[in-house]
Amino acid sequence: TNMMRVAVIGGEGIGPEVTAQASRVLAWFSDRRRLPVAVEEAAFGLEAYRRTGKVIPPETRAAIEGADAILFGATGGPETAEVPPEARREGSLLKLRRSLDLYANLRPIVTDPALYDSAPLKERVLNGVDFVIVRELSSGIYFGEPRGIETRPDGSRRGFNTNSYTTEEVRRVARFAFDLARSRRGKLCSVDKANVMEASVLWREEVIALHAEEFPDVELSHMYVDNAAMQIVRAPSQFDVMVTDNIFGDILSDCAAMAAGSLGMLPSASLGPADAQGKRPALYEPVHGSAPDIAGRGIANPLGSILSVAMMLRLTLGRLDDAILLERAVGDALASGARTADIAEPGRAPISTAAMGDAVLASL
Amino acid sequence: TNMMRVAVIGGEGIGPEVTAQASRVLAWFSDRRRLPVAVEEAAFGLEAYRRTGKVIPPETRAAIEGADAILFGATGGPETAEVPPEARREGSLLKLRRSLDLYANLRPIVTDPALYDSAPLKERVLNGVDFVIVRELSSGIYFGEPRGIETRPDGSRRGFNTNSYTTEEVRRVARFAFDLARSRRGKLCSVDKANVMEASVLWREEVIALHAEEFPDVELSHMYVDNAAMQIVRAPSQFDVMVTDNIFGDILSDCAAMAAGSLGMLPSASLGPADAQGKRPALYEPVHGSAPDIAGRGIANPLGSILSVAMMLRLTLGRLDDAILLERAVGDALASGARTADIAEPGRAPISTAAMGDAVLASL
Ligand SMILES: CC(C)[C@H](C(=O)O)[C@@H](O)C(=O)O
Ligand SMILES: CC(C)[C@H](C(=O)O)[C@@H](O)C(=O)O
Repeated sequence: TNMMRVAVIGGEGIGPEVTAQASRVLAWFSDRRRLPVAVEEAAFGLEAYRRTGKVIPPETRAAIEGADAILFGATGGPETAEVPPEARREGSLLKLRRSLDLYANLRPIVTDPALYDSAPLKERVLNGVDFVIVRELSSGIYFGEPRGIETRPDGSRRGFNTNSYTTEEVRRVARFAFDLARSRRGKLCSVDKANVMEASVLWREEVIALHAEEFPDVELSHMYVDNAAMQIVRAPSQFDVMVTDNIFGDILSDCAAMAAGSLGMLPSASLGPADAQGKRPALYEPVHGSAPDIAGRGIANPLGSILSVAMMLRLTLGRLDDAILLERAVGDALASGARTADIAEPGRAPISTAAMGDAVLASL
Repeated sequence: TNMMRVAVIGGEGIGPEVTAQASRVLAWFSDRRRLPVAVEEAAFGLEAYRRTGKVIPPETRAAIEGADAILFGATGGPETAEVPPEARREGSLLKLRRSLDLYANLRPIVTDPALYDSAPLKERVLNGVDFVIVRELSSGIYFGEPRGIETRPDGSRRGFNTNSYTTEEVRRVARFAFDLARSRRGKLCSVDKANVMEASVLWREEVIALHAEEFPDVELSHMYVDNAAMQIVRAPSQFDVMVTDNIFGDILSDCAAMAAGSLGMLPSASLGPADAQGKRPALYEPVHGSAPDIAGRGIANPLGSILSVAMMLRLTLGRLDDAILLERAVGDALASGARTADIAEPGRAPISTAAMGDAVLASL
């Protein structure tokens, strides 16, 4: 059959809360739009560790391996101190990204008209912003060797990490970004720090070479990361697609979050290499983290997670029409005034995580 | 005598233009306020290279070595391609920072009331922002070894850099930041990526240890760099002093620039270790770069450079009263409506670099 398997992993903090709403949305598409998906819920994090002694128990590993796509919530937070560092590392999101070789992380930054028309967000949500950050996710300083902390003869210490990129690592994520730019407004901005780092010099040279060889029709520009951070705040509508390395992508996407009104609005997709059938390992997750300060209170914004389902519909499930349907439903929910606390106007009571899920379902 | 020697290095791009205005201001303090300074102008960059074959000619090196403080403009830009890479590296700002061991880079982010009261800046200039980023400037990924680009047997390449911090490097810049926080509102936020990098784990551990040993009275918090980038855009008034590593400080200070209305407003001071007499090598420069696109047109904002002179008055020349006088004069010039292009309101003609210098001098 054509049944697609989706592993749903709520994780920790607000992860399970927001993922529950995204799961309801996915179920709606399965029921009402005959989307052929089989959903398998899997444990991850502190609860899993308490029960099984592993942050990622074997059943979760099996679910991940068998899945066409993963819907992930969040991980981390202070309460996880009871998990020993080795167990935590073994079961980290970083290891998962690396083991699936999820090299292309897509983070679209789009401002919803309902948000930029409403005070006080008007002051920070900028009209007409619609760009995608393509972040390299499986290399760079996150994974480079050697790394560690060493103690020196005099008792002082040194902590060190390696930022490393190869021709192949740069080209595959750049190719992804060029293809994406071609399907959009045809503009790619590559962000690096080539005035300081050799890893960035290589990055820039490979992007330039690939452009000449395969994508001369795409308009390519280059920006230093410090300038990019400023431009994202100052004039984000200048961007179409931006491609950058792992750590710069991490920082710049949070920097861009305010252009969308709140980090809680942002979805992401992380894709690995295509196999012979063109299938890619894929993990969908909101950009926000586990937010331990508000976890368990049912007030988190589920739209980052729900919009991650839209990305899944588009990129893994091949249902462009359903993706658009869902994005419109989110827009309609916002237009009808649905606001969680992070995007609420002063003096108007925010709604709960579940009520935002209701509002989206009501608009479908 | 007590004569202080200031080396004035305009450098490249808009550097000479903005520095000329800052020099006029310095001359005013020397004439009118009996500031005992001897100014020596020194060549740096493309012009110097054309004339002497060196980006930093021997006279400039001598001026730097003999100076109590350096007032620097800017360096870099596309036109410098005629300078071979080795000459450029030999004479780079980075080498200068490193050779003077300028480990503490102070970047104050302050919004002027005149700017946040004027549309359209109201939308991005945030009321009540007054914090200082203390950026570690002489170590980290900028200088770590090994670094380079290697070609592998299959013809592909790998670019790599090392992010490295030692106990001593972290502690001296953190000590500087704790002291600064103590003289202000007593709050220090240390920014790292300790959930990913060992260099950051060491950073955080050393900051925590130093806090316990020497600064228990300062309120210390920690933030991951991605969150810090977002918080700087979302709610910058939460910060008093922020301390972070070289590359994170580079990105976060540009990210913060919009809170001050424009990158052109921001000054900086870079300080090295104190000698037996308590004197520190010191370099003062605007945060902005050489801006080749507007160089030579006389339209750049000189306030970043002029406010760098105020930092020099305070930190090297020991003239707190004069520093405050100058900062007030800048405020008065802005209050009187003086606006260069970067901070001009639509429909109102901006004034030139020199006219902004005039406006500040008129307010003194
Ligand atoms: C939790 C953390 C390791 C992670 C990252 O830095 O990649 C997060 O910030 C993200 O952006 O997904
Ligand atoms: C020009 C460049 C090397 C420099 C840096 O990255 O330090 C600049 O961006 C700065 O912030 O002073």
